[in-house]
Parts: sequence; C-alpha cells; structure tokens
Amino acid sequence: MNFHILTLFPEMVMGGLNTSITGRAIDKGLISVEAVNIRDYSKDKHHHVDDAPYGGGAGMVMQPEPIYDAYEDLAARTGKRPRVIYLTPQGQVFNQKIAEELAKEEDLVFLCGHYEGIDERALELVVTDYLSIGDYVLTGGELPAMVMIDCISRLVPGVLNNDVSAEFESFHDNLLEYPQYTRPVVFMDKAVPDVLLTGHHKNIETWRRQKSIERTLERRPDLLKDAVLDKKEKKYLEELIRQKEEKETKKL
Amino acid sequence: MNFHILTLFPEMVMGGLNTSITGRAIDKGLISVEAVNIRDYSKDKHHHVDDAPYGGGAGMVMQPEPIYDAYEDLAARTGKRPRVIYLTPQGQVFNQKIAEELAKEEDLVFLCGHYEGIDERALELVVTDYLSIGDYVLTGGELPAMVMIDCISRLVPGVLNNDVSAEFESFHDNLLEYPQYTRPVVFMDKAVPDVLLTGHHKNIETWRRQKSIERTLERRPDLLKDAVLDKKEKKYLEELIRQKEEKETKKL
Repeated sequence: MNFHILTLFPEMVMGGLNTSITGRAIDKGLISVEAVNIRDYSKDKHHHVDDAPYGGGAGMVMQPEPIYDAYEDLAARTGKRPRVIYLTPQGQVFNQKIAEELAKEEDLVFLCGHYEGIDERALELVVTDYLSIGDYVLTGGELPAMVMIDCISRLVPGVLNNDVSAEFESFHDNLLEYPQYTRPVVFMDKAVPDVLLTGHHKNIETWRRQKSIERTLERRPDLLKDAVLDKKEKKYLEELIRQKEEKETKKL
Repeated sequence: MNFHILTLFPEMVMGGLNTSITGRAIDKGLISVEAVNIRDYSKDKHHHVDDAPYGGGAGMVMQPEPIYDAYEDLAARTGKRPRVIYLTPQGQVFNQKIAEELAKEEDLVFLCGHYEGIDERALELVVTDYLSIGDYVLTGGELPAMVMIDCISRLVPGVLNNDVSAEFESFHDNLLEYPQYTRPVVFMDKAVPDVLLTGHHKNIETWRRQKSIERTLERRPDLLKDAVLDKKEKKYLEELIRQKEEKETKKL
C-alpha cells in the first residue's frame, strides 16, 4: 500500500513514520510513504504558497494552484488518480471502521493544510474525503495524517508480526482491554492477580473477560450497548450495574 | 508550560514537535518539550523494558519498574509531581474542552505505551489521567502525545501570533468554519464568490455565517444542537432544513 502526503513539512512526517512498526513495514516493502513538498509547486520566485484571505480576516490561506499541480503531477507519475483525504476538523470523525475501509485502497493521498486553511477551489478540485481525527484544533494536517497512516498500516497484511494482535486488541467485541501484568510478581507491594499465575486457561479467560466488562462499564459505558456478551457475561454485567446503583443510592 | 514525554522513541516525538508553531514556541521559550527514554531506566543489562504477559497471550507487556523509576526521577529533578496522562484507546476521548483544562497546568507528563500495553501496577502508581485521541488503534502513545501537545500548546498565551486566530477557528459557536479563498480571483474556471470582493464587511460576515451553518448542517449536524445562533440565523437554518426535507421527499 502506498501513502502519499502533500505537505509543507515533509521532514516532519517522514521522521515520525520511520520509527517502530511503520518503519519496519517500510523496510519490508509492505507499505511505502512519500512526502510531496507543496512548496516545490509554487511558481512564485520566493516559493510562497499562501496569501491573505479574500473578504478579510486573520491569517493566511493556502493558494489553490500549488496543491492542484502537486496532485496532478502525482497522478501523472503514478498513472493513477487515488483518493485524496483532506485532514480537517470539519470532516467526518475517523474511526477503526473507516480505517478498515481505507486499508482496501492501493494508494491514498493525504492533503495537509496549514495556516487558516486551504482555498476552497483546490479542495473542490482534488479532495474526495474530508476526515478529522477528533474534536480538537491542531496546527496542521501532518499529525492527523501520521495518525491515520499508522492506524491503516496496521491493517495491511504482514505489517503486524502477529496477525492475532490487531484483532484481539482494544475494541474487540466492543469491550476495552483487560489489565496486563508481567514480571516481577510483586512490585511496590502490588502482586500480580493469583489467577494469572495458575496456568488455568479457562479461568484466566473468564477473569479477563470480566475485567474487560468492568472496565468498559466504568470508563466507556457508551460502548456496552454494542458489546458481544454471552449469557453468563450478560448476567455478570447486570450484577455490576445493580451493585453500582446500590452504592450510588447509599451515597444519597 | 513544560511537557515531559516518557517514551521508547524519544527521537520520534522530538522530531515531530520541532516543526512549525510548536517549534517556534520552543525557540521563544513559551513551552519546553523533554523526551525521557524509558529504556534508560532499565536495570537489565540488555536494556529490556518488556516481558511476556502473565496468564499468556500474544505480544509483550512493558514492565512496571522502568516507568515508575522514570517518573520518580522526573519528580526528583523538577521538585514537582505533575499530572501523568496515559495515552490509551481505553481513556476518555480528548477534545478541545479537555485541552483548555490541561493548558492551565505548569507541567504535564505523557506516558506512551507500546507493544500490548503497560503493566497495570505502573499505571496505578503513576497515572492520573487516561486519555484517548479517538476510537482507533495505534502502534503506541507517541502520536497521541504529539497531537495533545500541539493542541494544548496553541492555548498557551503568546504561542499563536494572533490571539484572535485560536478563538475564531473551528468550533467557534459550535459551527464549522466557512470556506476560504485567496489569489487568484479565477482558478480553473472557478471564481471567488463576488461578495468577498466587495469589501462590504457586514455582507461578508453574513455570508460567512450562512456558509458555516450550511456546512455544519451538511457535515456535522450533531453540533447544531449547541450552536449559538441569532434570530435571523435560526430562521436561515430552519429554511435550510425545510429545503433539505423537500428534496428528500421528491427523491422518494
């Protein structure tokens, strides 16, 4: 899978993605990441890519031409017209399901805005998808592009050493992950829960599922309505809710 | 404001934050960013920081001791015990309001997990806040930490050249931003809307507000219930909704 990033800060995105799992995936040739410097497409002798907004207002707006030319050049070079994702707080909020859908593409382009945004005509001409990583304001699209590329890369076959890992991670069955423990058995007077040391796989599995349910109820109860639980687990959840309500009644 | 990042990939976070607005804020001394390598606190001769999970399962878990020691060393060095944010998809979902609250702190520590997570006891001992940047799975906490630091830095006085900028940006009055245009007046047969060229400030303001309302209705209708609209704008929104419904009825 090939990621192309249209940006004013190519060294930032390349530095951030050369590390860890994405870095190894690049080395293995499972994914490729290319940063295209929008500034290289400026026809201005000072390599300007922005100008004041028509109608007034603070800040500068990125001009349409260098962005349009950068995309057209990419299309000519690759012989494809891949989807272009514009990173903006105005877009649909990115999630794991969207990541799975995007992971099916062969090429993806990420357009990173800066300053007060991008001239609307450039967006109309090249952008196919408007996506946000969350309801907060950032300096530019570079970090959101890196976040999405990290998330999507993990879904490309072979990128994770262990294919089981991606599947069993957070959000499996719409439950949060259970607590993890490793050596030493006792740290600062805190011991690893006994059940994990027994080697009794069925008990361990039951304990972990119960902890996942407890934690989801405590931290992200909104996820529980779509959680996949068996009959015993449903009963366990009901009992937890009953205890919680009892506690709250006592407080009043 | 001082950001401290406990991580296994110090060069990744420092590279990504030395650019653009956060980079300038560091140069001006408005913020400081320090990456603490958790591996430096390993007592293992091979500098291992992870081990297999008790109870079995895929992947490796980060051990409690190096993390605990890294935090205690930071506390000793700075003479403070700052809040520690653990970046995890299991946390509360980060948003602009949480950013504003965190921007009031003098020091913040970000703890970045990797592999299958961190030993639960380290979390119990040092973490004060569990935060997620969204409902998707990433390789580690580094990108989320960078996202939060970028967002919070922008709220530190002096970081943005123009204090108006942060306020008038996305999510002002719970409306999405209006479209922006800059030179040239005509690009690929697309002209800048006439009203923006008139210099008539009141008309420009009305047009921009209407575009913001249209766009919010189209892309993020969930925001509208908390939008701050005057009487005329409310009427405009009602008319838009009426037209939309009429269109949908015709389709049937």
